[in-house]
Amino acid sequence: MPHPKTMRAVVFDGELALREDYPVPDFGPGWARIRIKKAGICQTDLEIMKGYMGFTGVLGHEFVGIVEACDDSDWIGKRVVGDINASCGECEWCKSGLGRHCPSRTTLGIDRLDGCMADFCVLPVRNLLEVPAAISDNRAVLTEPLAAACEILEQLRIEHSHKCVVLGDGRLGILCAWVLITTGADVTLLGHHPDKLETAAWRHLKCITRLDEIQNRADIVVDATGSAQGLKDAMQICRPRGTIVLKSTVASKEAINLAPLVIDEVTLLGSRCGQFSDALAIMQTYPDMPLERLISARYPIEQARVAFDKALYGKPLKVTVEF
Amino acid sequence: MPHPKTMRAVVFDGELALREDYPVPDFGPGWARIRIKKAGICQTDLEIMKGYMGFTGVLGHEFVGIVEACDDSDWIGKRVVGDINASCGECEWCKSGLGRHCPSRTTLGIDRLDGCMADFCVLPVRNLLEVPAAISDNRAVLTEPLAAACEILEQLRIEHSHKCVVLGDGRLGILCAWVLITTGADVTLLGHHPDKLETAAWRHLKCITRLDEIQNRADIVVDATGSAQGLKDAMQICRPRGTIVLKSTVASKEAINLAPLVIDEVTLLGSRCGQFSDALAIMQTYPDMPLERLISARYPIEQARVAFDKALYGKPLKVTVEF
Repeated sequence: MPHPKTMRAVVFDGELALREDYPVPDFGPGWARIRIKKAGICQTDLEIMKGYMGFTGVLGHEFVGIVEACDDSDWIGKRVVGDINASCGECEWCKSGLGRHCPSRTTLGIDRLDGCMADFCVLPVRNLLEVPAAISDNRAVLTEPLAAACEILEQLRIEHSHKCVVLGDGRLGILCAWVLITTGADVTLLGHHPDKLETAAWRHLKCITRLDEIQNRADIVVDATGSAQGLKDAMQICRPRGTIVLKSTVASKEAINLAPLVIDEVTLLGSRCGQFSDALAIMQTYPDMPLERLISARYPIEQARVAFDKALYGKPLKVTVEF
Repeated sequence: MPHPKTMRAVVFDGELALREDYPVPDFGPGWARIRIKKAGICQTDLEIMKGYMGFTGVLGHEFVGIVEACDDSDWIGKRVVGDINASCGECEWCKSGLGRHCPSRTTLGIDRLDGCMADFCVLPVRNLLEVPAAISDNRAVLTEPLAAACEILEQLRIEHSHKCVVLGDGRLGILCAWVLITTGADVTLLGHHPDKLETAAWRHLKCITRLDEIQNRADIVVDATGSAQGLKDAMQICRPRGTIVLKSTVASKEAINLAPLVIDEVTLLGSRCGQFSDALAIMQTYPDMPLERLISARYPIEQARVAFDKALYGKPLKVTVEF
């Protein structure tokens, strides 16, 4: 049976459209083509639809799928997730294991590389990780955002005695709180949505709704609010010489007075993608981490427009599209 | 001879005035009164005159002077500089040697404590350091800003292989560049004032005037510009996973897009006052560090208004007032 030449794909080119006739992507040596099983809609997809990165093409960078074509036949048929940064493999960043900072990288569904909200996507084989059988598709599709949360642990040493506060009860905020909980630290999640905070309850995580409930200033504050107010609140509750982890790339339209950072000698740490292997490891170590709860709604690819409307207007935790 | 009850003082109470009849400050146990020899005008003084910290009282926090009264007679007659943060001495910050972050601290000439732009000021004895005889008054008066530059070395490990860029050719930028030079790292100072860059020339410091002269992105960028543009430039030239040291407390009136910090996972490190002992040590170790060059103009206290006008409008490196 000849391979299909076209596929279904959610394409953004100024407008969002579900195309039935999008070309199936070709790939070169060292790359693989993956048949998508599930894809997640991320806040970044919604930002792209407002012009972020000037991206046009197939959206999507969160997926779990099956390798369908690849020079290395060992990979074919394997269930995989994949790092979204397609790096050169040659530069100093790539050689030091930090390909996600490679200056010539393209990024799945974000920067010059068609994404995974389609029947197929392509990625370098070195980006792929086989998903252990014990991890369901509904967990594996969250590997990318969970890796972004794990990145905090790679950048920062969290101690048992640390008091951590995560600002923002969206999916990234909740994932950051859960990852911090695994360190044994004292973790509080501050959000404004009682239903999301209920979803977030896990182990010894404390969930609160008001900033003034925080009695003592925190050693580590994670800002996952996606708003300028988040950084202002973080500066207010972070102790002198503490650390604020900045997880949001949403540009502020208002001026922020950074003088408190200087006066309190706070470290503001930008934090982005993480290692997929760390996310898979944490899923295996903590099978009780209730990742599935984060999936608020699932839609078949035919209803992709409805799925995006839900993600845009329904303020859900995570919407997935299934193939 | 009875001690005078009044003194000359540069007072800000919404307007700047040289008062001849300001009360000589009293002091309690554990404090000392210092007769000021020289005081420096700092950018912070000029910011206070625009409303920063809501401070009213005697301005000034950079000085060298002679201990004139103190319970501990050993101190009397000694030439001293003094840490500007009058901390409680009891809290966890004070006990860990970080009294400059004590939450109940007052600050000389900045926060609820009359400053040193007067015949006398008072400080806790534990804030005082005797100035070694080899260090002239014209060097000692720069202890506070030099300590602020030294703070970078306390917060951050600088390696020989590091490429450092300092943005801003004001006195703090130049002092930061000089302190970084002592580590053996590759240091470039970027400024827009050829005369100040000429003043800054010392050892292997490279001085440039255009951002595009920077070929490779830097490991460490110090923003001492005091402007919002400085942080924007810093984000542009700092390498992924590099560090930006933020030295300016000047509030930006425009929005800054911090997304590059997140994308490049840059660490933004707020940095303020440093240890006076470090500054005195560096002056002794590097007697050729041309600190005196930073003093652009000297005025007697009677001409304090002229000195402040010079500092406000003349864009000098450092103006001192002498008693």
